[in-house]
Amino acid sequence: MAETLERVAILGTGLLGASTGLALRAAGFAGQIVGWNRGPEQAQAALAAGAVDSIAPTALAAASASQLVLLATPVYSILDLMEQLSGVLTPAQLVTDVGSTKAIITAAGNRHFNQPGKAGFLPGHPMAGKEVSGAANADAAIFPGAAWIFTTEEPCPDREPPQMTPQAAALAAEWREWAARFGCRVLDLDAARHDELVAWVSHLPQFLSTALTALLQDEVGSAPELNSVGGRALREMTRLGSSSYSMWRDVAYTNTEAIAQALHALEQRLAHLRENLRTPELRSEFDRANQFRKG
Amino acid sequence: MAETLERVAILGTGLLGASTGLALRAAGFAGQIVGWNRGPEQAQAALAAGAVDSIAPTALAAASASQLVLLATPVYSILDLMEQLSGVLTPAQLVTDVGSTKAIITAAGNRHFNQPGKAGFLPGHPMAGKEVSGAANADAAIFPGAAWIFTTEEPCPDREPPQMTPQAAALAAEWREWAARFGCRVLDLDAARHDELVAWVSHLPQFLSTALTALLQDEVGSAPELNSVGGRALREMTRLGSSSYSMWRDVAYTNTEAIAQALHALEQRLAHLRENLRTPELRSEFDRANQFRKG
Repeated sequence: MAETLERVAILGTGLLGASTGLALRAAGFAGQIVGWNRGPEQAQAALAAGAVDSIAPTALAAASASQLVLLATPVYSILDLMEQLSGVLTPAQLVTDVGSTKAIITAAGNRHFNQPGKAGFLPGHPMAGKEVSGAANADAAIFPGAAWIFTTEEPCPDREPPQMTPQAAALAAEWREWAARFGCRVLDLDAARHDELVAWVSHLPQFLSTALTALLQDEVGSAPELNSVGGRALREMTRLGSSSYSMWRDVAYTNTEAIAQALHALEQRLAHLRENLRTPELRSEFDRANQFRKG
Repeated sequence: MAETLERVAILGTGLLGASTGLALRAAGFAGQIVGWNRGPEQAQAALAAGAVDSIAPTALAAASASQLVLLATPVYSILDLMEQLSGVLTPAQLVTDVGSTKAIITAAGNRHFNQPGKAGFLPGHPMAGKEVSGAANADAAIFPGAAWIFTTEEPCPDREPPQMTPQAAALAAEWREWAARFGCRVLDLDAARHDELVAWVSHLPQFLSTALTALLQDEVGSAPELNSVGGRALREMTRLGSSSYSMWRDVAYTNTEAIAQALHALEQRLAHLRENLRTPELRSEFDRANQFRKG
């Protein structure tokens, strides 16, 4: 692969954006990384962490000067930035993202980019993160072993198929290669299928942990024995309870139906288990759970 | 403290029993540890792991020859063993246990032991374990930082207060000291309060993880992309899905009401969150969860 990537912009230098900057460096990227963040303190923290080389005054300034623009904000901010950047970037540039829901972003990408005269857009989602946010917690080690998913849209008969310029396509191929160098397993998925699948394996665990942790706060949060009694199971099942609303709000809004369906199925499953605490059906539930873990 | 403990019997040499044997050795116990297990292969595995020095042919043989008898089987087997041992042990001996529910065991202890002419009984529960079972997975490292809870019963006016002989009381004091040497935080709790509290912080996380994992097995267990897509959140929230039915069945049977209440509260909480995926109430749930984690 010819190496062409020399200037990367990271818009949104929170945990995931700054971790990507650190991962680029750790994987040997020798070019320039410019960062921008809505709140300047996160941009400064990313600079201090070595995740970016410089800070741009505006998202537009950072993006215009770069070959590849990584959008690493919550989903609605990604959509806002896509609209802003659509009119000013050139066909030789590539925009990509790390947003948690992909149907809405992939559709916007093919609407605002991937058209004649427009920059390219490659929708991406690394299945990596932490329950704590911010550039100060950034860490290249979140990537090894994780999937970095790229998504596509089903072809639509009443619309031109999306296409990138050769320069943008080369940058997209190179970015996939960088994801692999971070230690990720690069994977392609239909965007709608992505959203359906992550509703089960990512969003359900998150909202479940939030609900459990909020419940425990109300029920035993003030019990003096609590800190002594809780063990690893409690710590682990409530870890995601630390996750920030600002990121997950956008996930809840942009994948509502699939998440609601998964939550409802879990409510029914819990009721089923509760009604069978003293019947042989409890064994079947343990057997099914054991099977998933062995699979 | 005068050291008097020289002969310990571990009845049930699965994960927790064998881990206790290993912890005794790691903490410098120089006496004899005899093991017994209903299935002989677990006893052999405990012997091979160095968790016990010898294997007795029967529970009674192991117990009779020891000063301290540790019951480390599922709860109903503990209750069976208590009945068997009650008539044959002497007032100079102490029986203790590691069972997960304590009201029923504490009451049985004061009925079968802690009476004139009987051995002593000290109800215990280390808040430690693994999702995998068996002596082959035994590990002294599960104890450091964990609570080792000892429980008592509320005094009852129509019953003699429980009492131990001085020899049994000395062994109980020494056993508490060993738990501390394993790295545990020794804690005393009322048995009913213990069961209520662990329903929230231990049993609810377990049954929730089982229900979630069984649901995922049915919904996405056969999805070809599953292994690639799942991340740390999924692995962590389903880890307890590997837990064995044989242990948790007895927990479900002996703490049913408190567990059912906790499960029902969680079902309601999930429904509440589901109905508020697009309202400001979602922020409140994240705030409460964040608060628990900071607390």
